[in-house]
Amino acid sequence: MADDCIFCKIIAGDIPCNKIGENDDFLCFLDIKPITDGHALIVPKKHFKDVMEFPKELDEGYFAFCQEMAKKIVGTVKADGFNLGMNNGRAAGQIIFHQHTHLIPRFDDDKLESWPHKEITLEELGELQERILKS
Amino acid sequence: MADDCIFCKIIAGDIPCNKIGENDDFLCFLDIKPITDGHALIVPKKHFKDVMEFPKELDEGYFAFCQEMAKKIVGTVKADGFNLGMNNGRAAGQIIFHQHTHLIPRFDDDKLESWPHKEITLEELGELQERILKS
Repeated sequence: MADDCIFCKIIAGDIPCNKIGENDDFLCFLDIKPITDGHALIVPKKHFKDVMEFPKELDEGYFAFCQEMAKKIVGTVKADGFNLGMNNGRAAGQIIFHQHTHLIPRFDDDKLESWPHKEITLEELGELQERILKS
Repeated sequence: MADDCIFCKIIAGDIPCNKIGENDDFLCFLDIKPITDGHALIVPKKHFKDVMEFPKELDEGYFAFCQEMAKKIVGTVKADGFNLGMNNGRAAGQIIFHQHTHLIPRFDDDKLESWPHKEITLEELGELQERILKS
């Protein structure tokens, strides 16, 4: 548990949440500022700040828990799909520095727009590939 | 391998890609329609359609591979953060029905906007929680 971490306090029961599921490793609760109905957060009970620190011992149950929560949420709100999203760092929209996954139910008519794509040539893409491979 | 799956064909080497990493279970290549520089896809070599079908045997190496790719990409493009995103179903923006994770580098000045949040009362949130818990 990290001092001054709101998610650690929620996990410890010191701050209330709208819990919808948990197991030994993860807690799932509704986001109080939802993007769509049923928007939930999947939070590891152990504190670590972001995806880069996601510890190996949690890997095994991660997707199984996401699947279990998605099934319940999507079924209840009658969604047509869902996004799983992890924001890593402030520039990526991370606000709470206790790693978490957004589970956002999606609806055919929700009008949420994907981010725009950039124009890039195959040559530029190849140059970037080379730089990454050499890094 | 699934017939008529573009990602299976890329994995088999029948269609080229800008590969930047791979291991026994996953392949990572640059998105040809990037949202930001370094936008990459992390694709399991085994075909399954979406997050709901993510098989247990792949869990163990998933985050380790994402971390490895994120480190290389973020370092090369000098990003300030990154998003990991999985779109499940057409309503969520999934276009290729071979599960994949978007790794999107983020920059302090990239001006990509988060989706808007809805207003919801704590009472409404509590009612939704009850419905999910009873489902």
